[in-house]
Amino acid sequence: DPFFQESALYRMDGTHRGHCVVVNNHSFTTLSDRRGTNKDADCLRHVFQWLGFKVQRYDNVTKGHLDEILQKYKSLPGHANGDCFVFCVLTHGEFGAVYSSDEALIPIREIMSHFTAQQCPGLAHKPKLFFIQACQGEKIQPSVSIVADAINPENATPSLQDSIPVEADFLLGLATVPGYVSFRHVEEGSWYIQSLYNHLKSLVPRREDILSILTAVNDDVSRQVDRGGTKKQMPQPAFTLRKKLVFPVPKEEL
Amino acid sequence: DPFFQESALYRMDGTHRGHCVVVNNHSFTTLSDRRGTNKDADCLRHVFQWLGFKVQRYDNVTKGHLDEILQKYKSLPGHANGDCFVFCVLTHGEFGAVYSSDEALIPIREIMSHFTAQQCPGLAHKPKLFFIQACQGEKIQPSVSIVADAINPENATPSLQDSIPVEADFLLGLATVPGYVSFRHVEEGSWYIQSLYNHLKSLVPRREDILSILTAVNDDVSRQVDRGGTKKQMPQPAFTLRKKLVFPVPKEEL
Repeated sequence: DPFFQESALYRMDGTHRGHCVVVNNHSFTTLSDRRGTNKDADCLRHVFQWLGFKVQRYDNVTKGHLDEILQKYKSLPGHANGDCFVFCVLTHGEFGAVYSSDEALIPIREIMSHFTAQQCPGLAHKPKLFFIQACQGEKIQPSVSIVADAINPENATPSLQDSIPVEADFLLGLATVPGYVSFRHVEEGSWYIQSLYNHLKSLVPRREDILSILTAVNDDVSRQVDRGGTKKQMPQPAFTLRKKLVFPVPKEEL
Repeated sequence: DPFFQESALYRMDGTHRGHCVVVNNHSFTTLSDRRGTNKDADCLRHVFQWLGFKVQRYDNVTKGHLDEILQKYKSLPGHANGDCFVFCVLTHGEFGAVYSSDEALIPIREIMSHFTAQQCPGLAHKPKLFFIQACQGEKIQPSVSIVADAINPENATPSLQDSIPVEADFLLGLATVPGYVSFRHVEEGSWYIQSLYNHLKSLVPRREDILSILTAVNDDVSRQVDRGGTKKQMPQPAFTLRKKLVFPVPKEEL
């Protein structure tokens, strides 16, 4: 886009693109296995490595382990030379919160709060992207082989409204608007993560910014539901980004 | 943007651009006057008329009057030939809700819910933009001549998480993240609306899409707070848009 000034783009000229964490919960204590989630985790690793990130995947993460991961990444010296940070969570969830594999319920806000400028100075003024594949409430009857990532929707306490820290440079991409389920195919992975994967792959090379890419994901996910004739899923990105985020085009095709 | 397909843009070729409603509350029963709000209302009328909208402004709107306005606009035959719909609210507020001039608290979700495809078929598949200038909670000490649009923050009930209908094609632009105040100059108007005005004026002629424009507004509003040395204000747009929204460039300068 020749008209948007360079100063209105996040800088992508650090010594590395940054770190990407993928928390991938398949098995729980009492909750159902999240079949298909390994497909999602593979795709996220694949696409963010392609974009230049150092990707670390963690499977079946307990509350204690998640705390360790958060402590590790909030104080990682490497952020200082990186451009960006990505944190993905694939799990069961409720309104504004996600389950660890040992079934502690962790507010999305709490996860994000570790990466504010005060908590994590190395990421100050850099874009911090959070992608959450998890139901956010109400159970909806899924069609065959599509399962919903929601638990106990009736007891859920609304809390998403304060998920994003009162701070600039955050993006929260949720698989579904709060209060609604998201869908996951037991072999093909979730609609949202698969769509995110496909659209990063096709639109980054066209120099589309991340909000335009998530707009295309909205379109795709909303259409998939219509095709199935079931209840709809509608992602709803929210952002405090202050510049356009355009990933440099990788040299090789994915 | 030559790479984004035509099909990925909202159509802007109807017989008119659409309707824009501005609800402008200055005076209340017991709450303080919102000095400066008429400046905001004038700017919104000015800029959306320039963009081709039929703008209707309503001052000091009671709950009963707001209900009438919502009924009128949800069943307006004119939507069928329009491209888009804009609804602006300038008032006092709390978490996820806004005050009528007679001090009824109305959830933003309730306002938006009148314009879903089912409630308002004429706007189906068309972008529906809501801009809300109102505090969303916690009182913060303002500097001289800057006043906060918040009331009773301690009693506020979180409810923004379900502000956006579970439906495509909505954009919610809030002056501030939930739980925080927004600032208004008693003569110059609010930081958020003035910034929205300025950036529509400068970036629409550069063919920037609405999310890029709101990104620039985020940047501007976050900077203004830093300059004053007071607590920060951070807008946080959320969207279920499925295409890029690029307003046609008006023939005349604003």
